[in-house]
Amino acid sequence: MAFTLHPRLAAGGFDFGRIGACRLLLKDNALFPWFLLVPEVEEGIEDLHQLEPGVYLEVMEAVRRVSAFVSGHFAPEKLNVGCIGNMVRQMHIHIVGRSPGDAAWPGTVWAHEGKQPWLPERVEDIRRAAVAELGLE
Amino acid sequence: MAFTLHPRLAAGGFDFGRIGACRLLLKDNALFPWFLLVPEVEEGIEDLHQLEPGVYLEVMEAVRRVSAFVSGHFAPEKLNVGCIGNMVRQMHIHIVGRSPGDAAWPGTVWAHEGKQPWLPERVEDIRRAAVAELGLE
Repeated sequence: MAFTLHPRLAAGGFDFGRIGACRLLLKDNALFPWFLLVPEVEEGIEDLHQLEPGVYLEVMEAVRRVSAFVSGHFAPEKLNVGCIGNMVRQMHIHIVGRSPGDAAWPGTVWAHEGKQPWLPERVEDIRRAAVAELGLE
Repeated sequence: MAFTLHPRLAAGGFDFGRIGACRLLLKDNALFPWFLLVPEVEEGIEDLHQLEPGVYLEVMEAVRRVSAFVSGHFAPEKLNVGCIGNMVRQMHIHIVGRSPGDAAWPGTVWAHEGKQPWLPERVEDIRRAAVAELGLE
């Protein structure tokens, strides 16, 4: 199966590589430590329960591991995890570190318009840490 | 362990019973088919990756089964699944059926202020269907 990242997901973040059955992206918004897990599944599989049971477990294990990474590396007060996709239908799971005083607190990031690009050197720091902890391919 | 539902979660929905390691609630907002899964875990376990591995799998299996129920029973266009909890810290996972033309589409339900109580007979219909499909305790 040829998997192609949706152009809007590809344009909005940095592709860090593969974990489990997913690609891991850092969203290009330095206001939040905001990651996307994009399961490499065929088009039309848009909701979590549509994943085959084995793939579902693999994706959920990736959610768990990336959540632990975001928690450990950024020390947020709370994680926000969501699979929404009302607009971009290619399945993608948001994993976002949240803290009181961040740009959207206590609201959700999805209702927040603000955006600030990451500095390239910060992206490289985060990529290195993610590769080291998560063993991305 | 004595588990007590957070008063705000209890006041905002109908407790349908237990599935896996969770309580299942229907949120009292007829604008959306909106369910909450509340894992019966100790206070302080607020993020998914903090669950013990076996409990995590049990909770994720409940997410999968409730998602399939919402999808089958309400036939929404899309499911929105999220574990947020910035305000109410007791862990709870939203599973919401979404469709073009609903009150918040294509935005998220968490950014939507509108609310409309369910008719009691509708709640009973949904409860019966959920018990029949999910075998709630």
